[in-house]
Amino acid sequence: MSWPNNRLTQLLGIDYPLIQAPMAGGMTTPELVAAVSNAGGLGSLGAGYMKPEAIRQAIAAIRQRTDRPFAVNLFVSEPMKEEAQRVISANRLLAPYREALNLPEPEPLLSAVADYTEELTVSLEDSSEMWVSTGANYNEQVAVLLEEAVDIISFTFGVPCDTEVETFKKRGITTMGTATHVLEGILLEEIGIDIVVVQGMEAGGHRGTFIGSAEQGLWSLMTLIPVLADQLQIPIVAAGGIMDGRGIAAAHHLGAAGVQMGTAFLTTPESGAHPLYKQALLDTTEMSTVLTKVFSGKLARGLQNRFVAELSAAEEQLPGYPIQNALTRDIRRAAAEHDMPELMSLWAGTGCALCQAKPVAELMRQWLDQAAQCLKP
Amino acid sequence: MSWPNNRLTQLLGIDYPLIQAPMAGGMTTPELVAAVSNAGGLGSLGAGYMKPEAIRQAIAAIRQRTDRPFAVNLFVSEPMKEEAQRVISANRLLAPYREALNLPEPEPLLSAVADYTEELTVSLEDSSEMWVSTGANYNEQVAVLLEEAVDIISFTFGVPCDTEVETFKKRGITTMGTATHVLEGILLEEIGIDIVVVQGMEAGGHRGTFIGSAEQGLWSLMTLIPVLADQLQIPIVAAGGIMDGRGIAAAHHLGAAGVQMGTAFLTTPESGAHPLYKQALLDTTEMSTVLTKVFSGKLARGLQNRFVAELSAAEEQLPGYPIQNALTRDIRRAAAEHDMPELMSLWAGTGCALCQAKPVAELMRQWLDQAAQCLKP
Repeated sequence: MSWPNNRLTQLLGIDYPLIQAPMAGGMTTPELVAAVSNAGGLGSLGAGYMKPEAIRQAIAAIRQRTDRPFAVNLFVSEPMKEEAQRVISANRLLAPYREALNLPEPEPLLSAVADYTEELTVSLEDSSEMWVSTGANYNEQVAVLLEEAVDIISFTFGVPCDTEVETFKKRGITTMGTATHVLEGILLEEIGIDIVVVQGMEAGGHRGTFIGSAEQGLWSLMTLIPVLADQLQIPIVAAGGIMDGRGIAAAHHLGAAGVQMGTAFLTTPESGAHPLYKQALLDTTEMSTVLTKVFSGKLARGLQNRFVAELSAAEEQLPGYPIQNALTRDIRRAAAEHDMPELMSLWAGTGCALCQAKPVAELMRQWLDQAAQCLKP
Repeated sequence: MSWPNNRLTQLLGIDYPLIQAPMAGGMTTPELVAAVSNAGGLGSLGAGYMKPEAIRQAIAAIRQRTDRPFAVNLFVSEPMKEEAQRVISANRLLAPYREALNLPEPEPLLSAVADYTEELTVSLEDSSEMWVSTGANYNEQVAVLLEEAVDIISFTFGVPCDTEVETFKKRGITTMGTATHVLEGILLEEIGIDIVVVQGMEAGGHRGTFIGSAEQGLWSLMTLIPVLADQLQIPIVAAGGIMDGRGIAAAHHLGAAGVQMGTAFLTTPESGAHPLYKQALLDTTEMSTVLTKVFSGKLARGLQNRFVAELSAAEEQLPGYPIQNALTRDIRRAAAEHDMPELMSLWAGTGCALCQAKPVAELMRQWLDQAAQCLKP
């Protein structure tokens, strides 16, 4: 029995093959990341939306709290084009929410990038299209991670380029990629990524699909893990719907070297989730999540609420990611300030009915004991 | 460690908690059912589409081949109404396929029931609607099972009524129901069903959802099993995407008392699947299944082919189940006779990339050895 010590724990320098998912948007506080790493797992900072200087500060804050390894996650995004008309239409749909929250009406086009990350650029040379690029921001984010000598970098929404992978290898950085179907897993291995996180359809938050449509990358761990395990050499991490020792043991038998858990950490006191978001998760007893693009333009799984219900009919007319994400940002932020979960993005995996409100160390001990009981030699 | 002996094996009188799924439409030959039971599992006759006399003959044929327990599966269907115009439109869409297969053009409305099961009834009193009932056939099917003193009956698409459940209990018959979400599982237990088969979104063939829409009953086993295990007292059987000992071990740890496997048995020499259907399954390496209603009017998972691709745009305009199933029956049958898999329904679960062409006894030994290795105390 190779549990808990295996290639994954050796590569990452951790005690237990349990990774805290890099949930972006303020969930992964330094307290959460450090608590997971201090308990023998791998904490992850979800830095995809963070400005370079904020990442640097968060890394320092984590290092004040732990001397164990942790990961930082970045979004690998392609530059994307969007029709100006879609942005204007989306702002029209969002106007009633802004009014209810006393938010100013934004400049129709600039709202797509303003107050989001300073590196987004807009070009309005052609009056019918706008061009938004996130590339510059990503490169600056990578630069901070190299300067800070981060040990482990994980990637979502794509693959770093060859020269980047080479740089990471030279510096001894361990890399993790996210795959939602077989082809993506094979590609990540071929490009030289060290570990593949396999995101099942169970996972909360954004779908990591980068080849084909997200709707066609919705496979469950029960088959995705063994099919990929038969085809890959590098360690596989199972992500999605794993909520306790039962899921950890199941993932192990399916062929995963470890697990990545996100939703299960959201209701800990260490997580940065809004108190009403935590309560909504704890109140759930059914498998009531939905897949929606209304918050960000990219398919994501979360709890159903008023915002999802009201905008879902217009879903296919909304701008793509990250533009729609920028458009709804002021609304989500104000909704959180006003304690209105009905207008917040309440990302959650299909296992959210199993959420528990306990500190990280206690939860991890419980899960690992339960898994060890299942897997004892 | 309660594996392999537990409440499920005791209830069913079998050696290993492994059930062969009752795949309807000629897949579950007496040879397949008996081979599974003889190997220590539970074979199941998929009798949902069978006329009462055909069921009686199949039971006799199974009993000639085994003296071990086996199950017979029936469809619990609600009577359903359908607009005549939808049937006429669907027949228009199907005309090119019939022409290519040299099939006669059917009487527009009667084609919905003709040559399907003799018990379907049509009423054309109101010229705009037709009424199709399958109730009579179901009652006659049940009568045969009682006359033949079948030990185990499993149900799909619904719940037997109170008086039926009482009859089964008096006769010492063990009953199994199919649930696709939490509420259905709770209902099955409350009505007195002995065992719940939990059908994950991974499963091939028709979705068993009977409360709410099938699209809203697509949950994966990774979370559906533990969530239900926390709420039910009766044994849970995990069904969907389980293809070998890895899946068996995983299902066990998630909280299932056993597994039901369908697709994994289709490529055995004992199964009744068409040779080109078997070959299509064996050729699959990706997770290339789709969910479609085009063959039957009810959501089902199978391999993508020409018929699915060409009719999917009209999917929501087609008649409901079982009418669309009756309409396409001559086409599917002729396609099989002419070796044209592109027009056949090629039901398959998401794990079909792991199919193996081996005899039942050899496969089951391999799976059970692998599971035992995982689960050894």
